[in-house]
Amino acid sequence: MDQSAADRVDFSKGDGIIPVVTQDFSNGRVLMVAYMNREAFEETVRTGRACYFSRSRNRLWRKGEESGNFQTVREIRLDCDADTILLRVDQNGDRAACHEGYESCFFRALADGAWSVSDERRVDPAKYGASYGHHQPAKADA
Amino acid sequence: MDQSAADRVDFSKGDGIIPVVTQDFSNGRVLMVAYMNREAFEETVRTGRACYFSRSRNRLWRKGEESGNFQTVREIRLDCDADTILLRVDQNGDRAACHEGYESCFFRALADGAWSVSDERRVDPAKYGASYGHHQPAKADA
Repeated sequence: MDQSAADRVDFSKGDGIIPVVTQDFSNGRVLMVAYMNREAFEETVRTGRACYFSRSRNRLWRKGEESGNFQTVREIRLDCDADTILLRVDQNGDRAACHEGYESCFFRALADGAWSVSDERRVDPAKYGASYGHHQPAKADA
Repeated sequence: MDQSAADRVDFSKGDGIIPVVTQDFSNGRVLMVAYMNREAFEETVRTGRACYFSRSRNRLWRKGEESGNFQTVREIRLDCDADTILLRVDQNGDRAACHEGYESCFFRALADGAWSVSDERRVDPAKYGASYGHHQPAKADA
């Protein structure tokens, strides 16, 4: 990749990691918020597949590596302060970005003062094996 | 508001503040990423207007308080880990969420290895006064 694209991203504020909003390219749904360090950003640009940095596992997290729910990058945007990334992606596999089997991690909405699940699951995450989703308490997983 | 809605949000991970993705209800555009503490969340729910917590000014930030670009909340969503909020809003005023006068803070896209501005400004932020936007180096402002 062009080194300068990563140079322009300000990874300094959050100890080298920045938040990433991932949005479905086709329907505009906000799928998840995850994090990238510089290495994850560069791999994402180079490969065209979303690669995050898992804060809980402290390593690169190639989205879909266990489940097949990988994300093909259609567009990468940077915010005014250069410290937040917006990925617009095609969500592949079972089209479930969330490790709980929903299209989006934001499957709960506030209604009448309480959170309620407003979406239907796309897949039973048990399909991906017993350990799936249990090793990343911090964020929706691969 | 119902106290339990705030009780379900996990403010503990980020020293009491959590990231918030704000999306335009009408067109699905991701407008900005900001932060809330519990007080900002409760005010947002109570008033129906987006209120964030400014990390740079260390105080509540009522979006639009200077510019009139306030946001009317249409829906509030919570992610699977209960530590990230999605606000779907009507963007009022000049419909410029970004303190640089753009509809969205994500006005730059990666093209051919470099970031380039892909949007048109909706307003010249000088309209809001000389000090506008200069006191919040960390995030897009009111």
